[in-house]
Amino acid sequence: MNELQIIQAIRRWTSGSAPGLVTGIGDDCAVVRPRANRDLLFTTDFLIDGIHFLRDRQSAVECGHRALTRGLSDIAAMGGTPRYALFSLALADWTEDRWVRDFYKGVGRLAAEHGVAIIGGDLTRAREFGCDVVVIGDVPRGKALLRSGAGPGDVLYVSGMLGAAAASNWTRTPHARVDLGLRLPRAGATACMDITDGLALDLHRICVESKVMAHLDEELPVDPAATLEQALYGGEDYELLVALPKDRKPPRSLGLHRIGVVVAPPSPKQTGKILFRGKALPRKGWDPVDRP
Amino acid sequence: MNELQIIQAIRRWTSGSAPGLVTGIGDDCAVVRPRANRDLLFTTDFLIDGIHFLRDRQSAVECGHRALTRGLSDIAAMGGTPRYALFSLALADWTEDRWVRDFYKGVGRLAAEHGVAIIGGDLTRAREFGCDVVVIGDVPRGKALLRSGAGPGDVLYVSGMLGAAAASNWTRTPHARVDLGLRLPRAGATACMDITDGLALDLHRICVESKVMAHLDEELPVDPAATLEQALYGGEDYELLVALPKDRKPPRSLGLHRIGVVVAPPSPKQTGKILFRGKALPRKGWDPVDRP
Repeated sequence: MNELQIIQAIRRWTSGSAPGLVTGIGDDCAVVRPRANRDLLFTTDFLIDGIHFLRDRQSAVECGHRALTRGLSDIAAMGGTPRYALFSLALADWTEDRWVRDFYKGVGRLAAEHGVAIIGGDLTRAREFGCDVVVIGDVPRGKALLRSGAGPGDVLYVSGMLGAAAASNWTRTPHARVDLGLRLPRAGATACMDITDGLALDLHRICVESKVMAHLDEELPVDPAATLEQALYGGEDYELLVALPKDRKPPRSLGLHRIGVVVAPPSPKQTGKILFRGKALPRKGWDPVDRP
Repeated sequence: MNELQIIQAIRRWTSGSAPGLVTGIGDDCAVVRPRANRDLLFTTDFLIDGIHFLRDRQSAVECGHRALTRGLSDIAAMGGTPRYALFSLALADWTEDRWVRDFYKGVGRLAAEHGVAIIGGDLTRAREFGCDVVVIGDVPRGKALLRSGAGPGDVLYVSGMLGAAAASNWTRTPHARVDLGLRLPRAGATACMDITDGLALDLHRICVESKVMAHLDEELPVDPAATLEQALYGGEDYELLVALPKDRKPPRSLGLHRIGVVVAPPSPKQTGKILFRGKALPRKGWDPVDRP
C-alpha cells in the first residue's frame, strides 16, 4: 500500500467520529471544537521496536494496544477523560500491510473501549519501526491533577500490586487506570502520576515537582510474581501513584494501597529523597535516555 | 545527560510560557485552557535521519528548524495561528548532548519567532534518530481552511516558485507560510493545503477531498534553479496551494501565482485527475511510505 491507500484503510479501521470533532484524518490538521469550562490535556509517547516492545514476542494487536495505553495512562494520571488520539507511524521493511492492519486493530479496539477517536497522524518509512502517539483529553477547568501538589503530611498510595510487568519480562498487556483517575479529584487527591519507570524514579519525580521528600512503609504491595527489586525499579506497571491529605481516607472501592507518607525536606538539598527501611532509595529505574 | 537532566535543560532552552498555558513541560500531560470561539488544530510530523534530513549535510540547528517548520506549515495551510508544540525525540548513539542542545536552539528560535511555546514531549533512545513534532494551533470557530472546499470554476494558486527545494537536493532551509495562511480566509479561499510532497501529488489530494478535477496552465511558476520535473514532483517546497472563487482576485500583496482551474469531473472515476498540457499528470511525488 502507498500512503494514500494506508490513510484510506486507517479511516476504515478506526472509528472517526467523536463529540467536538470537526475534521478528522485526511486534512493538513485535525480540527476540534473544545467544550466550554474544560481544560485540555496533551501527551505524546514513543513506542519503538526493541525499546518499548519486542516484535518477536508481542503481536501487532498488542503493540497497538500498548502504544495507546501509554497515552491513556498519562491522561488518567491527570484525572482526565481521553477524547482523541493521533498516531505517527514509521514503518520498517518488516512491517507488512497485515501487521499494520493488526496494529490498528489493537488501537481501534482500545480506542472504542474508551470512546477515543483517532483523528490524525503521520506516516513514513524508516530503518526501524517506531510510533509516536498523541492523546488529547480534557478535565473540568482548573481540576487537572499535577505532580506538584503533594504536601508534607499527605499519605501516598498506589493503585495495584507493583512489579508484575517486570516479572513478565515486560510482555504483560498493560491497562491504563482511566476510571480510577476520574474518581481521584473527588477523593481529594493532591498529586498524581502514573508509574511507568518504576516506583523509585516516579516517586522521586513527584517529590521533586512538589518540593518534598517521601518515607516509604516497611512493607510495599509487591505483586506475588515479582521481587521487591522489580516492584521498586521495574517500570511499565501503569498503576497510579497518588497523594491524599491524611484526613481523607480513600474509599475501599478505589482499591488504593498505602505505601508511605510525604514529609518536608530538612534542607532544599534533600528534596526528592525517598527513605525506605531507613536508607535513601537509589534514583534508578527505567530511563530510556541514559546510556547503558 | 539522563532523562531528568535533558528535560531540565529543554525547559531552559525553550521558552515555556504562552497565553492559555496552565502547565507545560514536566508533568504527565501539558494543560491548556482553550480560548472561547476558537477551533483547535492538531498536526503531527516525523523528522527522521536519512528520510527527512541528512545529518552529514544539515546542522542540528537546521534540523530543529525543519522539524518545527513541518508542523507550522500544516497550521498555515488551515489558515490558523500556531500556539504550542510538543517534541518527541528518539536519540541515537551519535546524538551527543551538544547536538541535542543545538537542535533545540533551532527549535527555540523559530518557536519564539512565531510565539509558539514548547509545552511537552517524550524522550527515548533508539537505533536511529527520529523526532515527532506535534503543533497545536487555533482558528476562529468554523473558519478552518480545508482541502475539501474547492469547487468547479475556482482558480488555483501557489504562494511561490516551485521546485527550489528539490533543486537544492532538499537541503534548503524551509519556511512555513504562516502569515499568508492567516490572510487567506478573508481573501475568500475555498480550499488550501501546503505543498510538501510535490504539486502533482498534493493537488491530486485536494481534488480527491473536494471531489473535483484540475486543469493546470501551460506555464507554471518554476523556480529559476529548478526543472519542470522538480516543480511538479520534487516536494518540500512548503508553499501553499490555494483555491479561490473566480470572482475573488487575490490582492497582489499576497504574492499568489495562478496555476490553473478547478473543473467538475465528467464521471466520478475522473475525480482527482489533473490535466497538464493536454495529458493526465502522473500521481507521483514524495511518498514516504511506498516501497521503492
